[in-house]
Amino acid sequence: MTEIAIGIDIGGTNTVFGCIDSLGNTVIEGSIPTQTKDNFEEYIDDLISVIKSSIENADTEITITGVGIGAPNGSYRTGTIENAANLRWKGTLPIAQLVQNKLNVPVKITNDANAAALGERIFGGAKNMSDFMVITLGTGLGSGIVVNGDLLYGFEGFAGELGHVIVRSEGRECACGRKGCLETYVSATGVKRTVYKLLAKHLGDSALRDIPFNNLNAKMVAEAANKGDLVALETFKYTGKMLGEALSNVASVTAPEAIFLFGGLAKAGDLLFDPVRKAMEENLLFLYKDKIKLLPSNLGENAGIMGAAALIWNDETKTYS
Amino acid sequence: MTEIAIGIDIGGTNTVFGCIDSLGNTVIEGSIPTQTKDNFEEYIDDLISVIKSSIENADTEITITGVGIGAPNGSYRTGTIENAANLRWKGTLPIAQLVQNKLNVPVKITNDANAAALGERIFGGAKNMSDFMVITLGTGLGSGIVVNGDLLYGFEGFAGELGHVIVRSEGRECACGRKGCLETYVSATGVKRTVYKLLAKHLGDSALRDIPFNNLNAKMVAEAANKGDLVALETFKYTGKMLGEALSNVASVTAPEAIFLFGGLAKAGDLLFDPVRKAMEENLLFLYKDKIKLLPSNLGENAGIMGAAALIWNDETKTYS
Repeated sequence: MTEIAIGIDIGGTNTVFGCIDSLGNTVIEGSIPTQTKDNFEEYIDDLISVIKSSIENADTEITITGVGIGAPNGSYRTGTIENAANLRWKGTLPIAQLVQNKLNVPVKITNDANAAALGERIFGGAKNMSDFMVITLGTGLGSGIVVNGDLLYGFEGFAGELGHVIVRSEGRECACGRKGCLETYVSATGVKRTVYKLLAKHLGDSALRDIPFNNLNAKMVAEAANKGDLVALETFKYTGKMLGEALSNVASVTAPEAIFLFGGLAKAGDLLFDPVRKAMEENLLFLYKDKIKLLPSNLGENAGIMGAAALIWNDETKTYS
Repeated sequence: MTEIAIGIDIGGTNTVFGCIDSLGNTVIEGSIPTQTKDNFEEYIDDLISVIKSSIENADTEITITGVGIGAPNGSYRTGTIENAANLRWKGTLPIAQLVQNKLNVPVKITNDANAAALGERIFGGAKNMSDFMVITLGTGLGSGIVVNGDLLYGFEGFAGELGHVIVRSEGRECACGRKGCLETYVSATGVKRTVYKLLAKHLGDSALRDIPFNNLNAKMVAEAANKGDLVALETFKYTGKMLGEALSNVASVTAPEAIFLFGGLAKAGDLLFDPVRKAMEENLLFLYKDKIKLLPSNLGENAGIMGAAALIWNDETKTYS
């Protein structure tokens, strides 16, 4: 018999699930497309059916300890998804209750960045850390913050919106309706915007001049930078500087031992890490200088479902420790 | 027999102490000047002697549960004061150990802002709140942040330096050696600097034109504002705007239920609170709009020693709850 937690990672395109044991091994995994159904309950019905049949068809007998869900705008306190910008279902979605009704085990939900932080703590590079944060760099910028050994949820569960700290007064327009939010500079989308700003500013040749905005992605910019493209190189320097400055400020609030960078953009490696580290150290208050580790996430390809499953294993750890 | 915690509030000028019972009543209080001795241990000797004789001379028999100390740069994790800018003794001062050797009860230390936050939680306006922060407005700006019901100490105990979040790139010079820190704008000193900036900018009459920089204090500016002095009024608007913008950003990190303003500058009342609230609400991410209470501290004149004593009563509460 194998005891597992089901980790569910809800993305705008696909919903990925996995059965993860307490050591972080993936016993079963699978996925369904997220947004084919008009009705949210039908989507949950489909998802649970697929998970159940995967478990029934497994080689080993499986016991489900609980279900952890990472979802955009997922609230730990209420067990709901609220007004997620990139999901078709609007309003308040009582996902924890719906899943619990079907599987009759504890169900916990949080947003993707909090799940990533828990995953890092239970299975990744933050195993012995009580105070750290994970910055997720995707289409936007998310953050999961652990303090005193626990996720910082905040009032009503909505803490950790570091992507929406305003870093430039009257800066770039943000999808949240305000201007100058960190994620308009530091994210895959932010990188594209910076490329276009620099292409407008400079005269020199760049491979990026041949790519329309809507086709450009951060990976292309990293590839161009690795070939020595000056606009691409300056883009990463600028992106890193903006992130490093923001991290030096948030360090004055939460004083983390380490900051992990996670997600597609973090795969650019030194191109991103070097300017982030430089700007962060230059701007840190003396109390924190040379103390904060800037690290790549230590979770692999299954990070999303491992982080979601960590919601369950984290509570188990506490109960039995 | 009365069971009390000793609260000690170490300021640059005076060290105030009090014996506080678990309901927040002050049974005994007293003070000594802080910086008359070259040697830190002699200062502690004097302080403990005065406290002991106060207790021996009391009308009632007193049992000491523990000692809580609020001090500049006090570290909860190490029990030391480290390089406090406005104390004459430099380096690392092992104050918790020194006091414990003399009184043989548990001794806890934290910085003044953390103590204020704990005081607010145990005895003040945050009794039922798990997520809030206290902003202390004095010569500088301090912050004590409570999340998940506990003080946010951070790695090595130095979280909550909100006064040193950089809010203006290349802004005002700060005593920390950097530029543009929040406390260079929002503090008693920041208010003075803003008055002088505005006196330079404007031509109109102002009562403040007759006061040299070194004689000016925030109370005079508040008095001038209450008489309709335009420079003084604009000073409070500017100060409040800078604080409100900063609070809207930190809200995206910690998502507090309430923010308490504490200290001399907070006594300016609506002069300060109105522009803070306006700027905060205008800049908040939609998730937090109209949800965060901005409140004056609910602790009275003894706030410093009550906050320090709360370090002890907080742990007692946890043990017996």
